[in-house]
Amino acid sequence: MAKEITPRQQDYAQWYQDLVLRAGLADYSAVRGCMVIKPYGFAIWERMRDALDAMFKATGHQNAYFPLFIPKSFFSKEAAHVDGFAKECAVVTHYRLRTGSDGQIEVDPQAKLEEELIVRPTSETIIWNSYRDWIQSYRDLPLLINQWANVVRWEMRTRLFLRTTEFLWQEGHTAHATADEALVETRQMLDIYAHFAEKWMAMPVIKGIKTEQERFAGAVETFCIEALMQDGKALQAGTSHFLGQNFAKAFDVQFANAQGEREYVWATSWGVSTRLMGALIMAHSDDEGLVLPPVLAPVQVVIVPIYKGSDSIPVLTEACQQIAEECKALGLRVELDTEDHARPGWKFAHHELRGVPIRIALGLRDLQNGEVELARRDLRTKTQTTRDGLGLHCKNLLDEIQEEMYNKALAFRTAQTHRVDTKEEFVQKLEQGGLVLAHWDGTGATETAIKEATKATIRCIPLDAPDEEGTCVWTGKPSARRVVFAKAY
Amino acid sequence: MAKEITPRQQDYAQWYQDLVLRAGLADYSAVRGCMVIKPYGFAIWERMRDALDAMFKATGHQNAYFPLFIPKSFFSKEAAHVDGFAKECAVVTHYRLRTGSDGQIEVDPQAKLEEELIVRPTSETIIWNSYRDWIQSYRDLPLLINQWANVVRWEMRTRLFLRTTEFLWQEGHTAHATADEALVETRQMLDIYAHFAEKWMAMPVIKGIKTEQERFAGAVETFCIEALMQDGKALQAGTSHFLGQNFAKAFDVQFANAQGEREYVWATSWGVSTRLMGALIMAHSDDEGLVLPPVLAPVQVVIVPIYKGSDSIPVLTEACQQIAEECKALGLRVELDTEDHARPGWKFAHHELRGVPIRIALGLRDLQNGEVELARRDLRTKTQTTRDGLGLHCKNLLDEIQEEMYNKALAFRTAQTHRVDTKEEFVQKLEQGGLVLAHWDGTGATETAIKEATKATIRCIPLDAPDEEGTCVWTGKPSARRVVFAKAY
Repeated sequence: MAKEITPRQQDYAQWYQDLVLRAGLADYSAVRGCMVIKPYGFAIWERMRDALDAMFKATGHQNAYFPLFIPKSFFSKEAAHVDGFAKECAVVTHYRLRTGSDGQIEVDPQAKLEEELIVRPTSETIIWNSYRDWIQSYRDLPLLINQWANVVRWEMRTRLFLRTTEFLWQEGHTAHATADEALVETRQMLDIYAHFAEKWMAMPVIKGIKTEQERFAGAVETFCIEALMQDGKALQAGTSHFLGQNFAKAFDVQFANAQGEREYVWATSWGVSTRLMGALIMAHSDDEGLVLPPVLAPVQVVIVPIYKGSDSIPVLTEACQQIAEECKALGLRVELDTEDHARPGWKFAHHELRGVPIRIALGLRDLQNGEVELARRDLRTKTQTTRDGLGLHCKNLLDEIQEEMYNKALAFRTAQTHRVDTKEEFVQKLEQGGLVLAHWDGTGATETAIKEATKATIRCIPLDAPDEEGTCVWTGKPSARRVVFAKAY
Repeated sequence: MAKEITPRQQDYAQWYQDLVLRAGLADYSAVRGCMVIKPYGFAIWERMRDALDAMFKATGHQNAYFPLFIPKSFFSKEAAHVDGFAKECAVVTHYRLRTGSDGQIEVDPQAKLEEELIVRPTSETIIWNSYRDWIQSYRDLPLLINQWANVVRWEMRTRLFLRTTEFLWQEGHTAHATADEALVETRQMLDIYAHFAEKWMAMPVIKGIKTEQERFAGAVETFCIEALMQDGKALQAGTSHFLGQNFAKAFDVQFANAQGEREYVWATSWGVSTRLMGALIMAHSDDEGLVLPPVLAPVQVVIVPIYKGSDSIPVLTEACQQIAEECKALGLRVELDTEDHARPGWKFAHHELRGVPIRIALGLRDLQNGEVELARRDLRTKTQTTRDGLGLHCKNLLDEIQEEMYNKALAFRTAQTHRVDTKEEFVQKLEQGGLVLAHWDGTGATETAIKEATKATIRCIPLDAPDEEGTCVWTGKPSARRVVFAKAY
């Protein structure tokens, strides 16, 4: 049997860790805070990456690759960027090893760099330093570039996928002739992220704006998508930044407009990371393991023959192969589990742990009856289903599962979203978990006070928040609209 | 007009650099030795990566991702691996920055790592450290894993794509129960690399074995593919290593065989890198710019309307759009260049620089005659071609170009391959350039002496080299077969 997973009710954090390790998604490594993404986890990430990459390309973006290392001095160039982060970074100081007198490898003290290099925590600085050479005139704009890369932010307390010292991500960095055009780009990418979260990950998100305190260091405005996890905590799933002319000014990137006048370029940047793997897991999975939305599942249908004696092996194997061929011909991703010394119960648990959306089991009696046993991972239901037309049935059922998983997550979020108007209720609901829609007086001081008292932060000011006069739940001062508070990952 | 490129005859190295920069393939960066891969260059690399990735997956490999950083002590574990390289590496010693008293960013001396981390130059050590936990029994084998990653080897003298401090690559790391199975894997991957080089890059390669001196540090046997560049130098385009049990022993990776006995695991590793971009460029390109094999070209057909007065714009644009649609419907990658203020001559030079295999130009007279002007990039020929059936003609022509580019490169290599039997001729031919097939006495001392005297190395002992008694060109001692000597990148 697959090893058991700690139930969510008992210890949510332990459940998450058990699931990630036992489903073979990721593993700890010898380097503190750095993870290994195992083949099954990487297969899911590849599907996410390819889907996003296609959306980026369909909207005119091109991929490129910029250096892993950034000269230390670059971080001093954009003041807000420096203050905001760039402190917990991996610093390269030497470029050579040597064999010491004890035969062990040691750092060669002679090979010290004149200027230390920082392993990129994000690439605005190194990229805008290149853009200075690439952009001369308005004809060079817009420049719509994305890169898929690894980045490093030194973390003291790490959790697989959610917060790791090294992680994989994409970072888009675009350059525009006007503020309006850059803002349209910022919003377009936010919409792409929201579309991806909802249609691919089956995870509803709230699109919103970050407060000044939560804004990306160096941005004029940060847009985000926020999702709710099953434990009632929010998770920031993607950000899209309008950077104004901040980086263009810091790196002196100007262009000649149609009138021949020189202007600073307008910028955006936007990114999502392997953190989405954590969001995907926590949005849907259960105590038996992963629950994967069909469009992202590396295997959509697994077929398990239930052998009974060695005579049954060829006939059941052949029948299962036919089902597999039928499904593959319809474009489904199918796995045939004909291993003959593992017990069906073990196999069922294994495929549930891995979150395969549909499991088909076929025994001798099923074969005689022209039926199969079909199990849905998301609902954990089993039904006898006719063999005739099974491939098409699976194809339709996968669409249905995708939609129902989204609806279930949306219903959960709706049930866990609370409009509150008093401080008492505010504190109480935040304690219980979920999203809290409350009035806020718009000051950083109040935001900080709330964070210190409740550990909750303003996740975002929703883009669709209606104007609504009210009073701040914390200070009683006037407020123009409700914002979303929650404890967050 | 596109800026001119230094002719190959005048200065081959300068030609290469001009081409890479002006075709927009790569650029220098602010970090010494690190390049920026620009969008057009990255689009070619993406096609190479995707083709290889599909071949890896078709042969049962899965992708995964291992940490960027490797603890310093890991490099001391496999003695040959240490000696062979791992010396010119980027070393991370600190994990935090701070703002200094002058307001500038500085390294926080308090945040020093207990054990330094090495930015991976290759990942055998960190991966085999994980494999120890993943492999218990023969049922866990084979483990067929690949990763696409960035690696860093500190280089003093760098050249875009060919030798850079950071580069992108894939590294396969497989684990097997028997030596035979690992050897079959090693050879299989070599065959995949050779197939890719020949069928995708249109670049003939020699498959062979490296001598002990040229072998990968830690390998029992290194197989390679070697290609010949237009300047007569060889280039190692990919390697596949049989690692024996060396890394399994260094990291104590054992498995229980079917009899329950514990054995050390057998290993392979194999890789190709963005260096292939340099090979692709140097194998085919000319003084006008890139020449790309059609299967790797991001744009296979470019269509240029030759406007004459503003009345001609709509009618020619529409006719060109129809051609583009016809080509796209056949699966071709097409670009329509309807920019109306650039001159045709400038456009032609631009698309030649970028190596677009087929250019179609359409003027008013062509339109009346039911013709187009079709230019082949590889031969730089132009022919009037009937409009009728043009899409299919292009599709067939692309196949033809792919094949002819390979044949041309093969003919070049054949002409530049010399069988020599005397020391005088040996030295003379090596000086002229090309591959030299000569007898060698099999000793490292002779290999070293030849390298010191001629700067040439043994590129490989070809797998298909027939047994042939002879005497070493350098020492006159007996030799059992000819090996390939050349100066190399």
